[in-house]
Amino acid sequence: MCPAKKTGDVRPGWLIAIGGAENKLKNPEILERFHQLCGGNNARIMVIPTASELEDAGDQYVQLFERMGGKAHATPLNDREDCYSEDVRASMEKTSGIFITGGNQLRLSTIIGGTPVAHGIRRLNATGTPVAGTSAGAAVISEHMIAGGRSRSTPREHGATMAPGLGLTNKVIIDQHFRQRNRIGRLLTALSYNPFASGLGIDENTAVFIDPEGVLEVVGSGAVTVVDPAELSHSSMHDAHHMDPITLIGLKVHILAAGARYDVNTRLATPPQANNGR
Amino acid sequence: MCPAKKTGDVRPGWLIAIGGAENKLKNPEILERFHQLCGGNNARIMVIPTASELEDAGDQYVQLFERMGGKAHATPLNDREDCYSEDVRASMEKTSGIFITGGNQLRLSTIIGGTPVAHGIRRLNATGTPVAGTSAGAAVISEHMIAGGRSRSTPREHGATMAPGLGLTNKVIIDQHFRQRNRIGRLLTALSYNPFASGLGIDENTAVFIDPEGVLEVVGSGAVTVVDPAELSHSSMHDAHHMDPITLIGLKVHILAAGARYDVNTRLATPPQANNGR
Repeated sequence: MCPAKKTGDVRPGWLIAIGGAENKLKNPEILERFHQLCGGNNARIMVIPTASELEDAGDQYVQLFERMGGKAHATPLNDREDCYSEDVRASMEKTSGIFITGGNQLRLSTIIGGTPVAHGIRRLNATGTPVAGTSAGAAVISEHMIAGGRSRSTPREHGATMAPGLGLTNKVIIDQHFRQRNRIGRLLTALSYNPFASGLGIDENTAVFIDPEGVLEVVGSGAVTVVDPAELSHSSMHDAHHMDPITLIGLKVHILAAGARYDVNTRLATPPQANNGR
Repeated sequence: MCPAKKTGDVRPGWLIAIGGAENKLKNPEILERFHQLCGGNNARIMVIPTASELEDAGDQYVQLFERMGGKAHATPLNDREDCYSEDVRASMEKTSGIFITGGNQLRLSTIIGGTPVAHGIRRLNATGTPVAGTSAGAAVISEHMIAGGRSRSTPREHGATMAPGLGLTNKVIIDQHFRQRNRIGRLLTALSYNPFASGLGIDENTAVFIDPEGVLEVVGSGAVTVVDPAELSHSSMHDAHHMDPITLIGLKVHILAAGARYDVNTRLATPPQANNGR
């Protein structure tokens, strides 16, 4: 799905992609910053725990956000029928932020995809509501989602499987638990299929906060590996055999720690200290 | 140590850096190709098992190379005194190739460094003798060697420790078991200290064969990640605190599978198919 059409002067909402395992009790800076974007003490956050099969996956976040101020509620969507409920539709009307938990991103896309909930999230984000996801919830944000693939591998033919995501951005492809699960091969494989997007490999307890203009800032204790394939001069993907390692020549890579920025439109990275005057 | 001075028309020997765990019985293409460079049936290969503390580390390679043809012998160098032996000096005179096994690269540099064996290897390679190393033996080939550091980490201040290597090339810094041990953070850390060299991250059962002109070709079943920091526009290494993740903007990265080439002098990568006419 392409990002929802933007109309007139309406600014889209922030997108927050978290690499998983974000701090929840000690120094939860990522969750706090999202909570502030949702209105702080006036926040009304909808938590979507669909990616997880754990009963209490949503409740933990509800408690965390309510402790920070405002209201939060978990909306269990366990099958497609749930996504057509009038109650869910009504509660989406009143939400000031959406938070999508971790788990399996294919549960998210297969249960929510094409339903009023997916449409609602897209419409809310297009008109200013922040949407955050952690781990699987981060993967599903983009139009082209990494559904699975080999960790710990060099880039290979068939090294990543793709699926359509929620389509809140088509500028990036996201991978998570990035350094911890050694996923650079999988991200490069995904990018090589059609090198039009930037790749974001997000470490655990690390997030990108993408503002309405498409400039992301890194928050958290790890780093984000940005892969820009715009100047890729050769890829052997099209004539590789099954599971062959592939050759990719001319990738640009930035390693961005907290405070560093990247513009997903211009593809320019800026270091933390250059932002002081901002 | 800088590479030995080249005199007149004498061509230096090949350098072969292997990422470890190379095939030894089934399809040992890397070892066979090195063996051919050493003269095939006329080969006289010296195996240096110093990196390993296992008694038979050298014998395994001796048997493999002798099965391929010619002669091979292991030269155990277990302390610095061994490196001053007249027998060792005499057998170096007759060698057509040096093979350095895996283990701990600091054993290699601390036992061999500065001795007649180190001088001998440098002189032999400068005058045409191929030198190969696997794993720790690959790391020690370069002037600036990664001695240790964190695997599985994002690039961090203090994320890699460096030591002087044998200095057979100063154009590259080598890391090995690359994808298998998730070492891109460690290699980027090492490069960021002084981004003058290209970084080579070599997967297991994968090697770079660097010809006398400095053009390397990838051989084996994995890939080599080449990091060219020539256009690095920002590094936060100089003002990072202990173990902080660092920001690096503007790295160029190539993923090279079998048959792809990279010129360590011009820093140009070429895909496998472009070599057909060569």
